[in-house]
Amino acid sequence: MFARTSLSGFPEWLPEGRIIENAFLDHLRTTFELHGFSSLETRAVETVDELQRKGETSKEVYVISRLQELKEERSSKKERPLGLHFDLTVPFARYVVENAGSLAFPFRRYQIQKVWRGERPQDGRFREFIQADIDIVGDGALAFHHEVDLPLVMLEALNGLPIPAVTLLVNNRKVVQGFCEGIGITQVDEALRAIDKLDKIGREGVLAEMLENGISGERGEKLLELAGIRVSQNVKAAVTALGVENELLTQGLEELESLLEAANKRAPGRVVADLKIARGLDYYTGSVYETVLEGHEDLGSICSGGRYDSLASNGKRTYPGVGMSIGVSRLLSRVLTQELVTPSRSVPTCVLVAVNDEAHREDANDIAYALRSRGISTEVSPNSSKFGKQIKYADRRGIPFVWFRDENGVDTVKDIRSGVQVEADAQSWMPPASDLSPELVVKTD
Amino acid sequence: MFARTSLSGFPEWLPEGRIIENAFLDHLRTTFELHGFSSLETRAVETVDELQRKGETSKEVYVISRLQELKEERSSKKERPLGLHFDLTVPFARYVVENAGSLAFPFRRYQIQKVWRGERPQDGRFREFIQADIDIVGDGALAFHHEVDLPLVMLEALNGLPIPAVTLLVNNRKVVQGFCEGIGITQVDEALRAIDKLDKIGREGVLAEMLENGISGERGEKLLELAGIRVSQNVKAAVTALGVENELLTQGLEELESLLEAANKRAPGRVVADLKIARGLDYYTGSVYETVLEGHEDLGSICSGGRYDSLASNGKRTYPGVGMSIGVSRLLSRVLTQELVTPSRSVPTCVLVAVNDEAHREDANDIAYALRSRGISTEVSPNSSKFGKQIKYADRRGIPFVWFRDENGVDTVKDIRSGVQVEADAQSWMPPASDLSPELVVKTD
Repeated sequence: MFARTSLSGFPEWLPEGRIIENAFLDHLRTTFELHGFSSLETRAVETVDELQRKGETSKEVYVISRLQELKEERSSKKERPLGLHFDLTVPFARYVVENAGSLAFPFRRYQIQKVWRGERPQDGRFREFIQADIDIVGDGALAFHHEVDLPLVMLEALNGLPIPAVTLLVNNRKVVQGFCEGIGITQVDEALRAIDKLDKIGREGVLAEMLENGISGERGEKLLELAGIRVSQNVKAAVTALGVENELLTQGLEELESLLEAANKRAPGRVVADLKIARGLDYYTGSVYETVLEGHEDLGSICSGGRYDSLASNGKRTYPGVGMSIGVSRLLSRVLTQELVTPSRSVPTCVLVAVNDEAHREDANDIAYALRSRGISTEVSPNSSKFGKQIKYADRRGIPFVWFRDENGVDTVKDIRSGVQVEADAQSWMPPASDLSPELVVKTD
Repeated sequence: MFARTSLSGFPEWLPEGRIIENAFLDHLRTTFELHGFSSLETRAVETVDELQRKGETSKEVYVISRLQELKEERSSKKERPLGLHFDLTVPFARYVVENAGSLAFPFRRYQIQKVWRGERPQDGRFREFIQADIDIVGDGALAFHHEVDLPLVMLEALNGLPIPAVTLLVNNRKVVQGFCEGIGITQVDEALRAIDKLDKIGREGVLAEMLENGISGERGEKLLELAGIRVSQNVKAAVTALGVENELLTQGLEELESLLEAANKRAPGRVVADLKIARGLDYYTGSVYETVLEGHEDLGSICSGGRYDSLASNGKRTYPGVGMSIGVSRLLSRVLTQELVTPSRSVPTCVLVAVNDEAHREDANDIAYALRSRGISTEVSPNSSKFGKQIKYADRRGIPFVWFRDENGVDTVKDIRSGVQVEADAQSWMPPASDLSPELVVKTD
């Protein structure tokens, strides 16, 4: 259990947990850069106006104010109210508009940062948490193939982590919209909201809610047939069999089908068209993505996103995009609290150099510098107590090797796990590759 | 110029600047881990009580409040007021006390995070900025040698960056305190505050201020003699020549001398005992550290710290420590605005795979996946326009190589800087090592 929280909703990890977090973030970053995504960071704050540009959101915003300002008489000339960002999309949209002249489009960026929401904390829901986003944004236009490319990058990133298998669930706004139009449903948003509750309120509940919104039982039944489709290939055939014809539907099915085809080649069995996915369909305009973590379906989607025709706009220009966001802290919290992964040791240190007595500390420092110069993380014993105590110090932190120099100047290094001690030269000795840095060990039971 | 700010005091970098920032942070992290420091991150917020535990600080705190809460009638049952941390020391002290049972002491940690201060923004002073701290903390006691070890780690970290040479300036509270006692100055804090202004108000100003505080001109002159000492070795001899005797002074000189000796061995010429350094001497209890960046003395100290006998205490136990903190954003801002360093390209991408026509996009994807599987950052051209335009796309971002497959399936790769085009196999071709990732280029004029 490497997670602690002394303030509800604000998780902190012990050093062991932080090793796992860093390894996860390094892997995400490496994968994103391998695919040509540039790193970006935006400031933690936006103006409250910007945070509410799309109207009141359900995300609770934290506003910040200077403590002195609160104490002083409020001055008449107030600064613009600022709030902490609640996601990385709002600041990215603002950044794109501000810096459009310096960016090359289509612009690919990843952004891994903390975000804040003043929500009531619950299991897996935090007030401060890390998101890892990737987006591709065009200037005016963005070709469809990016909707195929991007989720495959995310899937590669997630399935490279030492966690249970991740499955990507996809749908397409055009399919659902076109299908609704094809069967004469005009209240598409209402229909989507009802479908979104399928798992909670069941078929009868969904039909009842649609009826309340003026959608006939017959049409509702038909839409539920669509929502029931869950296939990893031939989605076009499955939908066409329902006998509904509509141009937008046809276009959406072409898109969904080509996404599945690419996915079956790059990540066989890991991408599923699940046509009941409705979350975000009011916002997204093409593909929508969710994910499930095998055996942890209760976590909900750990990574979601989609295609939006207007990420940002400055009046003259519009920037369409496609993006996905990983809820890193939600995922990590599960990994840490259930110890799905543990680090092979709690410190970066590979070797502890023993100190014979304080007069010889400088000898130990020399050995340590020689080892470090070849990339071996090394500490010198903080004290010169009996060797047994120095070994215990290493053992407590999981440092695998202790280095000794005897009174004749002969160096030996001891693997304190096996007890094997061999002669060694600080200029050339290397630990086994698996001991060089802490490694992640996956729980296997 | 890779830095932009649309909100005063909250700097943001363009992708080029972010490449430099990431390279700097990676180097710091690698150096700290090489020396056995564990990574930690604490939440961004602390209770306002905690932030003001040592009394009102000069650092302006940002308090946060939920927007809904502000709008609603303030409820009688209020949440504890929270504020954003203004440094990494206060949260670390709180973390150590909270998690002492799970940490092994002496505990070595590094922490690289943003901090916030509601100050009036000025050149090099931000409201949001990154600090990089290392500290070693003991449980009850901490041996002096850590005061030698720690600044040498920082110096190694800083002088490994592609920036002008960094010099470490050191002083010791015991030397100044002991010297004052030895010459009969009892108003030590007042004397230190005056000495701290030496560069601003000159010798006469300092003497006048000391006189106001009841320190005689004779004693003031003597203290100025001490403050005038600036040597990189034999500090003990230089101070002893002033003929002042005091036990604490002797102890302090032993410490300072042994720090210089070690420094002259590990980082010759880069450490200077500068006995006029007084900042923080009211807080620190042993060694104090500052740094100067050659040619950028106007920036002030980019990295400071010292020894404190009580980082934290929970009543029963006291945790002494020694630590230093780099003002990363202040340093980076200078590097970026003066373009002291530029990246060899603006994107991680090494190869752009050209697309002959949309029907053959999947061929380009296959090539890209083959290259990426061997660690080569690769993008596929977002469009299938004329090759000239695709090459221009690569050129605009500084992507050095464009990959082509002709109608016979023959692959070639073109270095668009030299124009040289050679046959290549996606399963085995490697770029020169210097082109694999963006490299930092140091301004040489």
